[in-house]
Amino acid sequence: MSEHTAKQFDSELDDLRAQVTRMGGLVEEQLQAALTAFVETDRDALDKVIARDKEVDHLEIEIDSACTGVIARRQPAAGDLRLVLGITKVVTDIERIGDEAKKIAKTTRNLLERGATQMLEAAQVRHMGSITQSMLHHALDAFVHADTAAAARLVRRDKEVDRAFRAIVRQMVTYMMEDPRTITTALDIIFIAKSVERIGDHCKNIAEDVIYIDKGHDVRHLGLKEFERKTEKL
Amino acid sequence: MSEHTAKQFDSELDDLRAQVTRMGGLVEEQLQAALTAFVETDRDALDKVIARDKEVDHLEIEIDSACTGVIARRQPAAGDLRLVLGITKVVTDIERIGDEAKKIAKTTRNLLERGATQMLEAAQVRHMGSITQSMLHHALDAFVHADTAAAARLVRRDKEVDRAFRAIVRQMVTYMMEDPRTITTALDIIFIAKSVERIGDHCKNIAEDVIYIDKGHDVRHLGLKEFERKTEKL
Repeated sequence: MSEHTAKQFDSELDDLRAQVTRMGGLVEEQLQAALTAFVETDRDALDKVIARDKEVDHLEIEIDSACTGVIARRQPAAGDLRLVLGITKVVTDIERIGDEAKKIAKTTRNLLERGATQMLEAAQVRHMGSITQSMLHHALDAFVHADTAAAARLVRRDKEVDRAFRAIVRQMVTYMMEDPRTITTALDIIFIAKSVERIGDHCKNIAEDVIYIDKGHDVRHLGLKEFERKTEKL
Repeated sequence: MSEHTAKQFDSELDDLRAQVTRMGGLVEEQLQAALTAFVETDRDALDKVIARDKEVDHLEIEIDSACTGVIARRQPAAGDLRLVLGITKVVTDIERIGDEAKKIAKTTRNLLERGATQMLEAAQVRHMGSITQSMLHHALDAFVHADTAAAARLVRRDKEVDRAFRAIVRQMVTYMMEDPRTITTALDIIFIAKSVERIGDHCKNIAEDVIYIDKGHDVRHLGLKEFERKTEKL
């Protein structure tokens, strides 16, 4: 590869990274807006989240196609190939997080239309939401800085979200037991919590991709013990 | 590329296809077993599904790494590159279907332990399950035969699953309203139905990947109208 070609290639990889960062930033905003709208029962903010999901979809297709282009033209090897292939995986997860944010917004909108403001305010979604927002932020940060140690810490946080999810389910079951008229609303809140839980899973996937991109280790599907063994030296 | 190299390359692509078929077949079995165990409340079959998920995980990592190897060594272009990149996406969805089958098995096992046989037998999961089993079968078939028309038909079937899901939720809400003691069980059955719904989504993703591999059109995230316009000539 000539020096000129190598420089062009580097700048293409930088462009790809920048596009992922842009997409990630947009999805962070979407999640933030959906969760804030839930907590503050803000109808207009919800409409905006639902409308903006198209932008996220569009970015996924654009970045994916740019990755295919880079592989076809540049035939990257080793770490560069891992980066490009890793990016195609990362953007899939970012897009799915965007999808879940849209679902949260849609379900919240339905709940507001049915006048469920009081239950929305009582639901313990705020805590669970802030855990996943922090996870998303750290996952994107780990990607940008190729920070494997931060990514490994993130993988270990997945259980926090599961615990928070179970707490919301218990809270909602209590409501349903006490007053069967709350059943439909409580179910919708559980579906919202389920979306938040999924977002945690996607953040974990992104963190695993960061480790793969940086170190070439595929650490998916490992039990926590095996994961610690494989990542302690990273 | 010499004739010898070209032949080797073709045989590598054939190997990849065969591995995907094997993985797909295994996940079909897993889903079949999980759903049958649900309907027939068969405890042993559930344990087997949960144990075999490791095999699915292992195949995903193996195929993914084979794809990276093929790209690095063969530097495929155009349709061949689309096939290899498409396979990395297809196996992610197949693995997630395996995950959902495992979740169905685990939740069903909990339900059996709590003695919820009667509600399991009454739940309308059978119908929803058979729709997604058929979708999975057709998605894998469309991949094997590069059958874009079949893949396009499949994308249109996604709504069927959503309808079946809503029917189960309504059925479970009725139970919960009538007898609050059924709430926890009904919730678990709704989570199982949610897993089945997700499987439908993954089948749709696989079908979209088949269209991408075969025609180079990225048809994800299109509304039904736009999808019809883009696929009517396939």
